[in-house]
Amino acid sequence: MTGRDRHLLLWGPTGVGKTTVGAALATRLSRRFLDLDRIIEDEAGRSVPAIFAAEGEPGFRERERSALRALLKRDEESVIALGGGTLVDRALRDEALRGAVVVTLLAAPRVIEARLSASPMGRPLVDSATPEERSARLGALLRSRAAAYAVGHLAIATDALEPVAIAETIAVRLGGFVPLTISAANAYGVHLAPGAAAGSVAESVAAQYPTTSFLVTDATVAALHLDPVVAAMSRAGHAPHVIVLPGGEPGKNIDSARSIVRELASHDADRKSVLVALGGGVVTDTAGFAASMFSRGIRWVAVPTTIIGMVDAAIGGKTGVNLEHAKNAIGAFHHPRAVIVDASLSRTESPRAIRSGLAEAVKSAAIIDSSFFEWFEENVSGLAASDPALLENAVRRSVEIKTDVVERDPDEQDLRAILNFGHTVGHALETAGRYETFTHGEAVSIGMVAAAKVGRALGVTPDDVCERLARVLEALGLPTEAPASLREAAVSHLMADKKREGSKIRFVVLERMGRATTRHVTEAQVGDVLLGG
Amino acid sequence: MTGRDRHLLLWGPTGVGKTTVGAALATRLSRRFLDLDRIIEDEAGRSVPAIFAAEGEPGFRERERSALRALLKRDEESVIALGGGTLVDRALRDEALRGAVVVTLLAAPRVIEARLSASPMGRPLVDSATPEERSARLGALLRSRAAAYAVGHLAIATDALEPVAIAETIAVRLGGFVPLTISAANAYGVHLAPGAAAGSVAESVAAQYPTTSFLVTDATVAALHLDPVVAAMSRAGHAPHVIVLPGGEPGKNIDSARSIVRELASHDADRKSVLVALGGGVVTDTAGFAASMFSRGIRWVAVPTTIIGMVDAAIGGKTGVNLEHAKNAIGAFHHPRAVIVDASLSRTESPRAIRSGLAEAVKSAAIIDSSFFEWFEENVSGLAASDPALLENAVRRSVEIKTDVVERDPDEQDLRAILNFGHTVGHALETAGRYETFTHGEAVSIGMVAAAKVGRALGVTPDDVCERLARVLEALGLPTEAPASLREAAVSHLMADKKREGSKIRFVVLERMGRATTRHVTEAQVGDVLLGG
Repeated sequence: MTGRDRHLLLWGPTGVGKTTVGAALATRLSRRFLDLDRIIEDEAGRSVPAIFAAEGEPGFRERERSALRALLKRDEESVIALGGGTLVDRALRDEALRGAVVVTLLAAPRVIEARLSASPMGRPLVDSATPEERSARLGALLRSRAAAYAVGHLAIATDALEPVAIAETIAVRLGGFVPLTISAANAYGVHLAPGAAAGSVAESVAAQYPTTSFLVTDATVAALHLDPVVAAMSRAGHAPHVIVLPGGEPGKNIDSARSIVRELASHDADRKSVLVALGGGVVTDTAGFAASMFSRGIRWVAVPTTIIGMVDAAIGGKTGVNLEHAKNAIGAFHHPRAVIVDASLSRTESPRAIRSGLAEAVKSAAIIDSSFFEWFEENVSGLAASDPALLENAVRRSVEIKTDVVERDPDEQDLRAILNFGHTVGHALETAGRYETFTHGEAVSIGMVAAAKVGRALGVTPDDVCERLARVLEALGLPTEAPASLREAAVSHLMADKKREGSKIRFVVLERMGRATTRHVTEAQVGDVLLGG
Repeated sequence: MTGRDRHLLLWGPTGVGKTTVGAALATRLSRRFLDLDRIIEDEAGRSVPAIFAAEGEPGFRERERSALRALLKRDEESVIALGGGTLVDRALRDEALRGAVVVTLLAAPRVIEARLSASPMGRPLVDSATPEERSARLGALLRSRAAAYAVGHLAIATDALEPVAIAETIAVRLGGFVPLTISAANAYGVHLAPGAAAGSVAESVAAQYPTTSFLVTDATVAALHLDPVVAAMSRAGHAPHVIVLPGGEPGKNIDSARSIVRELASHDADRKSVLVALGGGVVTDTAGFAASMFSRGIRWVAVPTTIIGMVDAAIGGKTGVNLEHAKNAIGAFHHPRAVIVDASLSRTESPRAIRSGLAEAVKSAAIIDSSFFEWFEENVSGLAASDPALLENAVRRSVEIKTDVVERDPDEQDLRAILNFGHTVGHALETAGRYETFTHGEAVSIGMVAAAKVGRALGVTPDDVCERLARVLEALGLPTEAPASLREAAVSHLMADKKREGSKIRFVVLERMGRATTRHVTEAQVGDVLLGG
């Protein structure tokens, strides 16, 4: 589900402008605007303060809960302004996050206070006799609800903007926005921002009101993409302390992660700092892991600069580093607060790297979406030539698919297993080639064709599915067959890797194009395909 | 809320014996037994398979949801056997975990299959024409529900036990059991098992069906407590690979955590391994952090052997190591699957260490529970002499308090802040004394008395509360006043520590005995108290 198919809920503290912004946003998007408090008042036949007086807060919350549930069921997508306490309840927040796009409007406490002083009516929880008392009540209310206000798919800092400008900002963001809900405490968005990474990063950081901010990148990426991002963050008042990693897979280890943590500690980082990771998989995995460890987890923003990072690695909350030869043996699930995907950042990648990234996009199509696969078949020559518009579309659709799978299975229990299509043989080949012969995408390309052949041998995968898959991968310039020199080694790695799971391997195979399933197969069955060629 | 005040829900896969065990357990506990399926059938006037046939699975789930909600509201605590799919729904699971004790009955798939073959009736989701088909359906069902079955406060491996023995095991465990619910995906229990740590660890590990198991300890603890734990785990079929840390605070660093991860990797650990941490805070913090990192998080069991670990450190999911001089700067929130608290393990601690642990117990009493504080006043001489029964009671009540606070505020947002009573000044004193002058508990003891005086100066804390607090701490043999030589240094650390939060410190003070609140105070106000003596 993407942002465009859903209701938009405006959430945030009292006095932040949810109603005014909501009305402007509805006009901008040509949607109906609904104000939850107004609906509750209409149904109750009295004002919100009168409901509080007559029924207490529990009575009001009950009315609010059923009113919101009823609205969420309506078919026509609307813009709905919530009350300042609507989503404090975790169960209702969970429903809202799964059924709608939740946009959080935020402002510094003193800004909210100033707005409430100007318009103090109808807010029973902060209504007080004196300004001092109102300020104390507001402070206590904001503190007790801080965890609830920190959750939403998209956060907007409203301090310096007029309502119409806020509405415009939200409308622009939503144009390429994929919401991702992990739990009632953890939701964010993947921002498709072609050509606009720097501004998106700055906006996203500003909306987190960080004490200090940091940017981790590597030397190669820094030379290409660092300046505009730092400039935009600085303009937003959040000039980052920049940490440059040496780069390269050998540097993806716990010492690099510790060096980031040391830099954080020695540059005033605290629990309210934000870290931006700008780079390929080594940078986002390592920096994300450092963010997970520092003070038991600080907020971070992922900005992948490679196609493979955009379509796969940066989405799903996996962070980590290698332990000697064990890839990603150390790590954490630590979701970023936003993923900024700007396909134009990949223009500096080598054609081989872009092709490798596309292998993961083809995988998404093959396991989930046959029409996306057909699109690959139609546009394969343009993609092979790295046509920017085609790359952007491949990235966009892959993001939607990966996000959907992660949302439905955040803990990687069962559904998410199908994302491993092509990866069992792929990993064996990468290991056999000591991570030098093939890129990850190339190994997965060979692995997918092998998996299709295993599926065919099992009678699960139709002939033409095997052929179409191999044809697209070949046309993209990707390898589809293991070189003879690596086959024996790959098979023995496959066996070693799986020995603890018993004699059978749980293997992802295609039932038809766009639909994957898992089957238990013996190593011999996989080995036959690999060794048979 | 402790286990004894709640309904008991028996949860787990179909065919695991929920109904039979539930009836036996209800008899054993003299509670009423309720079978959810039977209640649904009575209300519907037809059998479960007939409801499935007439209303589909959604219709049945709707009936199930309202039936369980109604049962949870009943006052008389019962034993309730659930269906095999009742808590698959996350929202209902969350309600069940917060409103009851959820005991999960588990068994190896082949054991379940054998039981279903013996009694195949009335299970519509696995009802099939052939044994092969039933086996395949059951396998798919268990896989898709694996995440839901992994959640419960207490898990019991039923494979080798008769229903009456299982009921007896549960009844014994529940005698000293404090359930802790973090989320719909994360709940566990603190097991108060005086004199019975080894058996509890073995039971807890066995119920996790690990591929391989590990035990991390240090040399001192190993000499005192390792053998019985290893023996019990071995008898249960889970002999652990033992990893012995050098021990001591200097070893609480990322290199120790990495060395544990290396040992895991080189001894067949995988995502289904379990790690037991047996020791003081250095061991549980370091090993828990290693468990959080390995393969992005494996299951672990915390077995604190110090009073301070039992009453405070091991409860709450905080793991971590020091970064040079920054205490716990690196870490993760990674809750264990069980905490085994056996106060008798502390008998080998020094009197000074025991006193220090009791300082945190006094803190729990002072901020939350005035009758617990009165108990301290009445029993202070016996506690000062480390009377085992008194220690056990102090540990039990502290566990209940800490668990309750963590459950209400798992992310350490607001409520959990009151646990820092005495810690602001305490940390400053520890730092000023380079962590050599005072133990943590001693520093907190002085910090609590300082906080009481600050509260008194603010007009929040009554005189007699200050005096009672100081009197109990002194009678326990704990320091209550900062030595003159450290005062200046402590005040300057206080200022340095807080500089980024602006000029005011959020400080925990007592409103009365058993009730804490936070106030913003200036450093000068705290400094006056410290420097004034």
